[in-house]
Amino acid sequence: FRIGSGYDVHRLAEGEDLWLCGVMIDHDMGLAGHSDADVAIHALVDALLGAIGAGDIGQHFPPSDPQWSGTASDRFLAQAVKLVGEAGYRIGNVDLTIICEAPKIGPHREAMRQRLSELLAVDIGAVSVKATTTEKLGYTGRGEGIAAQAMACLVQY
Amino acid sequence: FRIGSGYDVHRLAEGEDLWLCGVMIDHDMGLAGHSDADVAIHALVDALLGAIGAGDIGQHFPPSDPQWSGTASDRFLAQAVKLVGEAGYRIGNVDLTIICEAPKIGPHREAMRQRLSELLAVDIGAVSVKATTTEKLGYTGRGEGIAAQAMACLVQY
Amino acid sequence: FRIGSGYDVHRLAEGEDLWLCGVMIDHDMGLAGHSDADVAIHALVDALLGAIGAGDIGQHFPPSDPQWSGTASDRFLAQAVKLVGEAGYRIGNVDLTIICEAPKIGPHREAMRQRLSELLAVDIGAVSVKATTTEKLGYTGRGEGIAAQAMACLVQY
Ligand SMILES: [Mg+2]
Ligand SMILES: [Mg+2]
Ligand SMILES: [Mg+2]
Repeated sequence: FRIGSGYDVHRLAEGEDLWLCGVMIDHDMGLAGHSDADVAIHALVDALLGAIGAGDIGQHFPPSDPQWSGTASDRFLAQAVKLVGEAGYRIGNVDLTIICEAPKIGPHREAMRQRLSELLAVDIGAVSVKATTTEKLGYTGRGEGIAAQAMACLVQY
Repeated sequence: FRIGSGYDVHRLAEGEDLWLCGVMIDHDMGLAGHSDADVAIHALVDALLGAIGAGDIGQHFPPSDPQWSGTASDRFLAQAVKLVGEAGYRIGNVDLTIICEAPKIGPHREAMRQRLSELLAVDIGAVSVKATTTEKLGYTGRGEGIAAQAMACLVQY
Repeated sequence: FRIGSGYDVHRLAEGEDLWLCGVMIDHDMGLAGHSDADVAIHALVDALLGAIGAGDIGQHFPPSDPQWSGTASDRFLAQAVKLVGEAGYRIGNVDLTIICEAPKIGPHREAMRQRLSELLAVDIGAVSVKATTTEKLGYTGRGEGIAAQAMACLVQY
């Protein structure tokens, strides 16, 4: 068994799309940054890479590299899944926590789990998406950004 | 095996009781919010639910639902433990981190572990309660709130 | 199996050395606090102690105890590793995330993994060091401090 965790933060900004867990969400603000700035997938990529000791998302997909500008984070996740397999592991389960005041994640939870289960090629029962707020405290509480943490449990083939 | 993580934050306020890990602590401030606002138990509930892909505490016990107003968070934990069993898992170990400048957690650690081991129906050796500060940085550092993170490792029956 | 997580924060200050993962890094600021303030090793010590339910770094090495003033955090990690063995476990893998705007962690990643693998007496493939920023948000984003989180997966002998 191997475990890994990932953490990421992106800024909320007007005029950006909001992608979370590979799902586009209708909201008055979106996330700025690297690629489509899907902070949840970025955290998950880091959890997978961390579990196999294969660096981090910034090493594999440098924000400074123009080829990743605006790209769907699905591509990063596909690459991490590939590396997990090549290292001799399969995904046991993953657990994500999205930390923000808004939008509400609950209405999108099942779509997110479904999308991630497709991208990870695992049963939806092995994919968890949770949300919490920081009770208006800090940058997530003030709506300046969204944070995400992810856990991955890998099982040796 | 399954792993899950949880994260929660509640505000410190005067005139509130301070519950952490099911133990009432004598302190000049307490936590405000949903139920008894036991931020550590809330994080643990989310870790258990996350490990089995069963949503999150906000889905099971919406803060907006008056039936949970002021309720002991023990009830949320009991329900999460029940769902873990129904999913075919038992608790391997849990590990909590309480993030605050005050109160000191050390003097209450053993009472907290004891209480959680009862609520989880596991040996106290499988229950960890840790604390850290953020060196006066951020909202936890300024004493505006307490954050907690929890990890759970589940074993298939 | 046992899992544990650790989290720690230290302040950046001028005139301090910067130690991360047991490696001294050339940077214009360093971390202040307990011992050499190696926030990444502190988080890792807590992950190991958490996995075996053996308290936390503050209990074993109180910041108030002058014997730990300025000491290398390697000593804390060595003691945690010893306790893990005494509890009947060996380290499966560890995964660290360093959260800061600067310095860049990538150029030091392999030296950090190498150093940690020596201190933990595990293969370098079982040691992950990752980094992320908070996109200039919060105290890590403003460069006031560095945060670290660590995960540990232990296997019974
Ligand atoms: Mg990112
Ligand atoms: Mg709560
Ligand atoms: Mg420390």
